[in-house]
Amino acid sequence: MARVTPLSGFPEWLPDGRVVEQHVLDVLRRTFELHGFAGIETRAVEPLDQLLRKGETSKEVYVLRRLQEEPAAGGDPAADRGEKQLGLHFDLTVPFARYVLENAGRLAFPFKRYQIQKVWRGERPQDGRFREFAQADIDVVGAGELPYHFEVELPLVMAEALGALREIGVPEVRILVNNRKVAEGFYRGLGLDDVEGVLRQVDKLDKIGADAVAALLVAEQGATPEQARACLELAAISGSDTGVIDRVRALAASYDAGTELLETGLGELGALVEAAARRAPGVVVADLKIARGLDYYTGSVYETVLVGHEQLGSICSGGRYDTLASDGKNTYPGVGLSIGVSRLVSRLLSAGLVTATRAVPTAVLVAVLDEESRDRSDAVAAALRARGVPADVAPTAAKFGKQIRYADRRGIPFVWFLGTPAEDGTAGPDQVKDIRSGEQVDADAATWLPSADDLWPRVVPAVAP
Amino acid sequence: MARVTPLSGFPEWLPDGRVVEQHVLDVLRRTFELHGFAGIETRAVEPLDQLLRKGETSKEVYVLRRLQEEPAAGGDPAADRGEKQLGLHFDLTVPFARYVLENAGRLAFPFKRYQIQKVWRGERPQDGRFREFAQADIDVVGAGELPYHFEVELPLVMAEALGALREIGVPEVRILVNNRKVAEGFYRGLGLDDVEGVLRQVDKLDKIGADAVAALLVAEQGATPEQARACLELAAISGSDTGVIDRVRALAASYDAGTELLETGLGELGALVEAAARRAPGVVVADLKIARGLDYYTGSVYETVLVGHEQLGSICSGGRYDTLASDGKNTYPGVGLSIGVSRLVSRLLSAGLVTATRAVPTAVLVAVLDEESRDRSDAVAAALRARGVPADVAPTAAKFGKQIRYADRRGIPFVWFLGTPAEDGTAGPDQVKDIRSGEQVDADAATWLPSADDLWPRVVPAVAP
Repeated sequence: MARVTPLSGFPEWLPDGRVVEQHVLDVLRRTFELHGFAGIETRAVEPLDQLLRKGETSKEVYVLRRLQEEPAAGGDPAADRGEKQLGLHFDLTVPFARYVLENAGRLAFPFKRYQIQKVWRGERPQDGRFREFAQADIDVVGAGELPYHFEVELPLVMAEALGALREIGVPEVRILVNNRKVAEGFYRGLGLDDVEGVLRQVDKLDKIGADAVAALLVAEQGATPEQARACLELAAISGSDTGVIDRVRALAASYDAGTELLETGLGELGALVEAAARRAPGVVVADLKIARGLDYYTGSVYETVLVGHEQLGSICSGGRYDTLASDGKNTYPGVGLSIGVSRLVSRLLSAGLVTATRAVPTAVLVAVLDEESRDRSDAVAAALRARGVPADVAPTAAKFGKQIRYADRRGIPFVWFLGTPAEDGTAGPDQVKDIRSGEQVDADAATWLPSADDLWPRVVPAVAP
Repeated sequence: MARVTPLSGFPEWLPDGRVVEQHVLDVLRRTFELHGFAGIETRAVEPLDQLLRKGETSKEVYVLRRLQEEPAAGGDPAADRGEKQLGLHFDLTVPFARYVLENAGRLAFPFKRYQIQKVWRGERPQDGRFREFAQADIDVVGAGELPYHFEVELPLVMAEALGALREIGVPEVRILVNNRKVAEGFYRGLGLDDVEGVLRQVDKLDKIGADAVAALLVAEQGATPEQARACLELAAISGSDTGVIDRVRALAASYDAGTELLETGLGELGALVEAAARRAPGVVVADLKIARGLDYYTGSVYETVLVGHEQLGSICSGGRYDTLASDGKNTYPGVGLSIGVSRLVSRLLSAGLVTATRAVPTAVLVAVLDEESRDRSDAVAAALRARGVPADVAPTAAKFGKQIRYADRRGIPFVWFLGTPAEDGTAGPDQVKDIRSGEQVDADAATWLPSADDLWPRVVPAVAP
């Protein structure tokens, strides 16, 4: 397949794989822009203290040092010169928060932005885990406040973006949603006040199973066996209609664990499930075990799986945070989701789900009769390009059979032959050959067009061998 | 202006600046693809020994360390664990050479690729010099051999790409070309055999002037005053027709410095100037002082200036190298050029040459009457998007005046109002208002379209204030 990874964790694609990745990025960008998200890019580096601000040590940061910096014994040479120590960003949320604070006076809130960039994590490379990968994020951030309806809309934008990839062979997606207020309200109602600790254990369900999580809740969070069982019963609830809300409410009642916070959360979760059922039927499922490890989520949380590829884990996650950033005077609440583009593309390629119709943009190779007439071939290519047809000129005036093989090896569908001069000095008509069918017809570079399907490389579902 | 650089050397743009940058990138990509260049991306990191392979110390490399790596006293902890020490790439040529070697068996040669990515250099930030910046590279690389005509074609592709930006207000470009064989042949004919040393001094002409360079040639390269004068006379020759070739030949004859290598180089340079005069009149100028500091160029070398902004330095440089890469068995000669996109965009923005018609993609803001009818507004936006019209929905059901100001502040040209229900329960027609003219007309989301000029943000020449 198109994948080559000689430096473990740093994926690269051959040109045909890059056609697939570029198409995915183009589709995501277009969907985000149709929804009014403005594109931004942030620098790859942030001051190390910013990256570690949340006590974030699980995502291992790459720290930078200039080669010619003097590595002072035991000291921090950058700091000695008044420069901040820099690290590569491990997500696009921390840089976005910094960007919002830095530019707050020049942005209009609520500010909707998308951001498609590489991020780096020094983790141990595993299946589907990369040390360098592309993320595609959307976030809406408000100044001081942000209406709840954005928590409904953002996952639906992602559903639409991923849905737009169905036609190239991307499997159906399922967005699993939960609400941090539901979990917190329920745990507190049970009498478990270390909400983060409980969430951290529940987050291990898929990895270690219910019994082990129950044991951890008892051993590490000081839960009673009954409290632990209640947490697991909550985590077992899922469904795509508002019946799921009633079941949570009934569960809470049976443990006498109802709280105001729980009710608020259920109201929000219900609204999300209801709107999603109407606007993107079957895509969004309330799943009460979704915890999301990060402590900054305060409302809706989202994870997304490819149906049939659930073991790949979530390819699109996010949630609501009341404080994306704060400058002391203002706080900036937000809601956002992030697609792991490299993980998605890697799976599409390695599982042979999609393929590019060719690895080069070129639709037409203009043949060269001899080096003296290369100029004429260049002129034909220029005429085709001027009308939007990607065209290349044969690198040498080799035998035509060899020039056709040049096109064939690259998947270029058409080869163009210049008209040969007749005895009276006038040139005969040019001809273009479809090298797949062998059909060859007279053609004029000022008017001829390939079919729309052949104009550019396309990404299509791979045909099973 | 749109520029914010609180971390010196790491430029970021506000959304309207990013619209400009994205447009530039889109135009470059399209031009490269029309010419048959396949897009690739390489990882941001390379093993440090690869980055330093050419003894390259002028471009200061950023070295990476994982935060939780034990910094062993005096040792290299990564190497201790058998991991290679990694650095961020400082250009796209070194990674491309590695990519070609790694994938040689899976690529078709000559291989034409474009690559648009960030690169990093730990240099002292100065005007127009960044520590992180985007480059857009095109290269053609052959296996074993590469015909000369690519040395003519590649700068013309760049001329076309940059020319396609004229309509947004990018100044005219001038591509300055020289041929390493001409310089080397001439210097050797003079009796100066440290060709690289001479080139390094001549490269300083623009910075320190002719007298200082002459002094350095004498003091450091052991040239006689006459030899130094000859070098400066060669460097003073420039012109956009083949007359320039005759002047070099006459100069060489006057110093009795003609060599076979010089003649080969003059033949190539003449062919380039001649073809360029025909295919892109006025764009390419032979300029015999162009040296390019890098020692791996072996034929044509290129630099590009924006006319009227020459002091910005070259925004697009490159050349021919006989050995891009070699695996012992095969060598891979190539020719390529690289556009400094960040430097270009930075200048376009800071000099106020170009502007975006708006900072958000949104063409239409759908107003919200009250939260109960938000669903209807969402449906209108969905209908518009389905037909390719970027649409947003007002974040709150504020007074319409406030909703119009929301659009106005973002440059969104149209606000859409839902038809109000009549007494008999039927809804009146929707209306759309052009908030610039105030004109408001009946409209149907299933058929209405904005003008092509308003559909997406456009990048246009800035109007002088």
